[in-house]
Amino acid sequence: MAEIEQISDQRLIKGARARATIARRAADVASVEGLTGLSLGRLAGDLGLSKSGVATLFGTKENLQLAAVRAAREIFVEHVVKPALAEPEGMARLRAIVDNWFDYISEPVLPGGCFRVATTAEFDSRPGPIRDAIDADRRDWFALLEKEISRAQSQGRLAGGDARALAFQLDAIVAAANTGARLGDEAAVPTARTIVEGLLG
Amino acid sequence: MAEIEQISDQRLIKGARARATIARRAADVASVEGLTGLSLGRLAGDLGLSKSGVATLFGTKENLQLAAVRAAREIFVEHVVKPALAEPEGMARLRAIVDNWFDYISEPVLPGGCFRVATTAEFDSRPGPIRDAIDADRRDWFALLEKEISRAQSQGRLAGGDARALAFQLDAIVAAANTGARLGDEAAVPTARTIVEGLLG
Repeated sequence: MAEIEQISDQRLIKGARARATIARRAADVASVEGLTGLSLGRLAGDLGLSKSGVATLFGTKENLQLAAVRAAREIFVEHVVKPALAEPEGMARLRAIVDNWFDYISEPVLPGGCFRVATTAEFDSRPGPIRDAIDADRRDWFALLEKEISRAQSQGRLAGGDARALAFQLDAIVAAANTGARLGDEAAVPTARTIVEGLLG
Repeated sequence: MAEIEQISDQRLIKGARARATIARRAADVASVEGLTGLSLGRLAGDLGLSKSGVATLFGTKENLQLAAVRAAREIFVEHVVKPALAEPEGMARLRAIVDNWFDYISEPVLPGGCFRVATTAEFDSRPGPIRDAIDADRRDWFALLEKEISRAQSQGRLAGGDARALAFQLDAIVAAANTGARLGDEAAVPTARTIVEGLLG
């Protein structure tokens, strides 16, 4: 029994690793071509796996799309949010988040730049589990920004404006910078940085 | 000869009308599902036409996608830009453009809301004729905003800020409001209106 359990554990670990590899690759592809264009067969081919193996791990294309959303979220948290948690709450952390986000869109970790910007525009009019996942992600992101903005305000910074409105502005400006950068508009990121400096200054 | 020419003219007119109908339908579909998901066969089915007829008119899927971009651009010009041209140049016209754009995303003409926001995020990382068309469209849009901002500034309005930066901000805020509205965030448009009011006030 112990041996069988061990084999089963190893299989689970192997399966979990394969899932993570495939989900990461799916996030890479979807950042450029969108979630709509994902296909189990093509991902299998890219990674040198069998299509049936990938199908066994994910079942449906929708599950693969949801796994890509989760993988992209983890990458964003890893690069933008986590390093900022080393900074003191409030103004310093808010600045760090925004700086990290600018770095993230300037030298993109995913080849298509900010996954959230790309896939939100892709799925915002298509009700279902993918839109729900993207929407939940957006809510978490706004809640994080608003929390640090409110803390900064209680530190006597950012005047007494509406935290929600400032979060909306920061998100809008950096998202637009991401789009501009993808289109080769070299003024986009510097322009956005100046605007954000004005908002946080 | 005159008769043949007449038949030929009628055919051209009929072909042009069919093209326009199909391109408009393609813009409707792409506003929700993206340009990637367009298919000659499905559009033919939706419109009760033969697939070969649609293929004769457009040739390739890429031509159909480009026709959808042009159709969406015309709709945007018709609803957002043209009515504003009745206003005096400068501040009044800029306000009218922005107001019309808010109306356009609040009660969308295309079922997926602002086509430019959706398709720019979709194609900004995919070099080729579609990205070029979307990029040209974005440049025209920024040029239009910047022209009216500069005129407003020469009227003594909007202080002496960078016209390019203000155009970037206006575009970013309304685009983010479009995304929020599509996701059912009822605060998005009012929040964006307040922010824009502050920028233009």
